[in-house]
Amino acid sequence: MIKLLVAGTVAYDSIETPFGKADNVLGGSALHFTNAASFFTDVGIVATVGNDFDMEGISFLKDRSVDMSGIEVDHGKTFRWEGKYGYDLNQAITLKTELNVIETFKPKVPEHYRNAEFLFLANIDPDLQLHVIDQVKKPLALVLDTMNFWIESKYDALMDVIRRVDMLVINEAELREITKEHNLVKGARKLIELGPVCIVVKRGEYGVFMMNRDEVFLAPAYPLEDVFDPTGAGDTFAGGFMGYLANVGEATTETVKQAIIMGTVMASFNVEDFSINRIKKLTMPEIKERYVALKECMKFGDINL
Amino acid sequence: MIKLLVAGTVAYDSIETPFGKADNVLGGSALHFTNAASFFTDVGIVATVGNDFDMEGISFLKDRSVDMSGIEVDHGKTFRWEGKYGYDLNQAITLKTELNVIETFKPKVPEHYRNAEFLFLANIDPDLQLHVIDQVKKPLALVLDTMNFWIESKYDALMDVIRRVDMLVINEAELREITKEHNLVKGARKLIELGPVCIVVKRGEYGVFMMNRDEVFLAPAYPLEDVFDPTGAGDTFAGGFMGYLANVGEATTETVKQAIIMGTVMASFNVEDFSINRIKKLTMPEIKERYVALKECMKFGDINL
Repeated sequence: MIKLLVAGTVAYDSIETPFGKADNVLGGSALHFTNAASFFTDVGIVATVGNDFDMEGISFLKDRSVDMSGIEVDHGKTFRWEGKYGYDLNQAITLKTELNVIETFKPKVPEHYRNAEFLFLANIDPDLQLHVIDQVKKPLALVLDTMNFWIESKYDALMDVIRRVDMLVINEAELREITKEHNLVKGARKLIELGPVCIVVKRGEYGVFMMNRDEVFLAPAYPLEDVFDPTGAGDTFAGGFMGYLANVGEATTETVKQAIIMGTVMASFNVEDFSINRIKKLTMPEIKERYVALKECMKFGDINL
Repeated sequence: MIKLLVAGTVAYDSIETPFGKADNVLGGSALHFTNAASFFTDVGIVATVGNDFDMEGISFLKDRSVDMSGIEVDHGKTFRWEGKYGYDLNQAITLKTELNVIETFKPKVPEHYRNAEFLFLANIDPDLQLHVIDQVKKPLALVLDTMNFWIESKYDALMDVIRRVDMLVINEAELREITKEHNLVKGARKLIELGPVCIVVKRGEYGVFMMNRDEVFLAPAYPLEDVFDPTGAGDTFAGGFMGYLANVGEATTETVKQAIIMGTVMASFNVEDFSINRIKKLTMPEIKERYVALKECMKFGDINL
């Protein structure tokens, strides 16, 4: 039985950054997510790939108790994304998107995935996200990601999804675009009024802003000297976040805060190399060490005035 | 005897934000700085104003033990700045700058200011900053601010100042421009190699990054729902920062961290109203309350995996 289910994409990426180039490397929201989450819990993936996809390339995930039976191999080519970054690594420039098998994808949740207590809807068409929700038993925590493309092209369907989820994990620009509100506190409150109990806003190199009905939590990003490739950082954050929640088995304000730090830690490793390479060879002692190091960077004393 | 000395500007600002407009209101780096710092310690100001300046407008500072004998009244008009902001309040658009009496300003540090243990060189011509340093006894902590204009027009003089100070309090874009380094860790290290022991990088609504020889400290900004006017936020931050250090009487890694939080707290109040208005009517209980509230927003537990 899996504890955590993700529905999203598995892709081949071609990426150029000021520090190098990588062609046809493993990518996609569900893959980055799973790569991170599988350190903490049993994960099942719902996604599609083409018959050109090399399953051997992700077989290492089996050793981390990932169930890949939900990856559908369809006739056609695997989803491909080509992009590049300048020195401002917060901003990806998409050079080419080939949807390929994604175009006709109709996610089917395997029977043995349907009781997963934690569900992450990675960035795919909101109609497909609704279709996934309809197939599962209501999880303990149902969490949503999306992107500007769906906000602009499928606003109503996206709103339907938002009304049905417990949390959103989105970036700052997306929050502003969905809510038409520049201020984060006001924007997050608008979303909370729609139904979700918690809004997690990713701010790239500046960290994370979280708001629920009672509290605000602020987490800076881990200070890195060498950021190599930011592709998948957001999905890796979500993987660390959801993986940690599934591990502790509950999404309280306290565990959500720890999960945000864990997501931040995982994302900081992800950007240290191209594709899924850094997280692939990561170890639990390294993860724990960085969690403590980040906590140390945020520590300060009380005042006595 | 004053504990903290600031050299900078006292000005009349005309400001337009998406939330309102204010004409010919009190401003300037030294004034915003002093308004904040005077909650914590005795401050002396070195600045110049024109004979059109209404001293009554800042007489409330005397009640907070501010020594204004270093404000020189020169023949001519007071320095004036006109600017506006869009919804991205991180970015000021300068509409007009009238240097007026600043143009011929030659800062003279009064005799009884010269033993101040803490000295802040607010954003003025680096040559004038050097001239101030030459007049004082070496302080416990000599801290510098600057701006893009001086980086571009007086790079060598600015470098001379940097080599002589203990700390820099600058914004992210300035760090990148001075060091020609996009990465903050690398940029801060370059500056530390020149002499300063500590670099405090202001990141607007995203908070503060601090680096010294041993540690990195990360402080998020206080989450505000209503940001009214960001003018002077950086100087107010510096005022809270230096005022707190002068109050505790030493600049160790620990006190610097607390001072960064105090600067963040003071800056968060500053942006809640135009000009110096919010800090003018601020109280110590409000300051203490927000310090605790910000600390609360950064708190999270250890992991147990």
